Amino acid sequence: MSGAAVAGEHLWPVRVYYEDTDAGGVVYYANYLKFMERARTEWLRELGFEQDALREQGYLFAVRRVRADYLRPARFNECLRVSSRILRAGRASLDFSQRVQRLDGAGLCLAEVGVACLNSDTFRPRALPGALAALLPTQDGAP
Amino acid sequence: MSGAAVAGEHLWPVRVYYEDTDAGGVVYYANYLKFMERARTEWLRELGFEQDALREQGYLFAVRRVRADYLRPARFNECLRVSSRILRAGRASLDFSQRVQRLDGAGLCLAEVGVACLNSDTFRPRALPGALAALLPTQDGAP
Amino acid sequence: MSGAAVAGEHLWPVRVYYEDTDAGGVVYYANYLKFMERARTEWLRELGFEQDALREQGYLFAVRRVRADYLRPARFNECLRVSSRILRAGRASLDFSQRVQRLDGAGLCLAEVGVACLNSDTFRPRALPGALAALLPTQDGAP
Amino acid sequence: MSGAAVAGEHLWPVRVYYEDTDAGGVVYYANYLKFMERARTEWLRELGFEQDALREQGYLFAVRRVRADYLRPARFNECLRVSSRILRAGRASLDFSQRVQRLDGAGLCLAEVGVACLNSDTFRPRALPGALAALLPTQDGAP
Repeated sequence: MSGAAVAGEHLWPVRVYYEDTDAGGVVYYANYLKFMERARTEWLRELGFEQDALREQGYLFAVRRVRADYLRPARFNECLRVSSRILRAGRASLDFSQRVQRLDGAGLCLAEVGVACLNSDTFRPRALPGALAALLPTQDGAP
Repeated sequence: MSGAAVAGEHLWPVRVYYEDTDAGGVVYYANYLKFMERARTEWLRELGFEQDALREQGYLFAVRRVRADYLRPARFNECLRVSSRILRAGRASLDFSQRVQRLDGAGLCLAEVGVACLNSDTFRPRALPGALAALLPTQDGAP
Repeated sequence: MSGAAVAGEHLWPVRVYYEDTDAGGVVYYANYLKFMERARTEWLRELGFEQDALREQGYLFAVRRVRADYLRPARFNECLRVSSRILRAGRASLDFSQRVQRLDGAGLCLAEVGVACLNSDTFRPRALPGALAALLPTQDGAP
Repeated sequence: MSGAAVAGEHLWPVRVYYEDTDAGGVVYYANYLKFMERARTEWLRELGFEQDALREQGYLFAVRRVRADYLRPARFNECLRVSSRILRAGRASLDFSQRVQRLDGAGLCLAEVGVACLNSDTFRPRALPGALAALLPTQDGAP
């Protein structure tokens, strides 16, 4: 898969089940972070990286930073879509722009999520797997 | 602590937060199992056993069996109480009778939960820690 | 859809994400109940019933009874399958046999789940929607 | 309770149970938002406001904005403390500074959480309950 493809937007569908909602009748605010983590996992999978295999190779991803804005509530039984896009790829980090939206395109939750790549034993920063880094746009935006 | 005390009932308070509820306005059915696991953890703690320390000694507890009846719903913001009592203590297992109730005593969820003691490396059955077994009523009910 | 089809087995795929696991490295025991509820929702949807629409018509489904046996653990990143089958359809209740299994067919969690159909305002039992009842096998097994 | 007290720091203890952790062996990142919501609920309760009663009076609080930094992981069985402090009180909003820390004071997750006060029927902004506003520091910091 080319860097251009990676630079684009990844989409992942999410259905809202009872487990995701709260007594306010809408999706509980912490659960959008679950939806976004599912989408990042599937983004990685689409690029050919399975996180259980990465773990065995000593790589672990950990969220370091979340900036989330909640615009509209999602309701029980709705079908949503999570878009994910790489904002910045560092040596040992990935910053995502993610958006949980309705199928009509209305944005529900917009977030920037900063993820660190760690050594899974020591929990210290570790450079991204080379095969992944090779797929990512460089800091100046060129593939 | 004497076997008699262990044979008795352990009580643990639980407050219902938004995270516990669903769009039906009541506690989501799977979340009662969280409440009951908190109570079993606190039962063990009261007996002097911390599960992180047990893990380091190679012990892991895993639920094998749940029989739960849901009688009445719990609502947002209610204060509940989980009672826990040992039904049977086997060589490598503990069967609990647990009850999530309102403070007025009304039973909301009644359950029997079967827990196996495992070797935390192999996930195979392992005899309960001796110090714990010594506190438990024997099969014939004598301490 | 014919009663025969309904009498058969419904399958729903579930991917295990980090949110589903616990520090034991496997799926947290309460989360299998989430997987099974997703599968029941999709079973209903396949029959043409959306639960948000049913709610507006005054129908609410509530779990009354869970009998779950945990056979093997599911691990992070695994792809699972939930099978659902109607065991008994009463006037105001549905009993499901559900099974969370790996793609190789190994059973991880087997459960019987009893669901009551309620009036969504009063929370009292209410006969199943007629259009749904018409699709279900009768008590003696004939469609 | 005086404005001075409200301007201070509220502390709420949280125990880490299996339900809170993931296969990485640490607290799942979305679950810190649950801990912080419990603490905001208890902050309100300490001031004399129960959210179920507020709901009946037509008030609903909804999170609009989360800025969270994850500094260190929390582990299974740890005892944590959530501190909450009002950063800004608007006519229909409350901005909190919250901090999940270990008992030794080490900061694990630092967050700013913006909460809107809504009309619980229309989901439109609604001025804070007067009795609550009277307890809060005004924009210029005077009680």
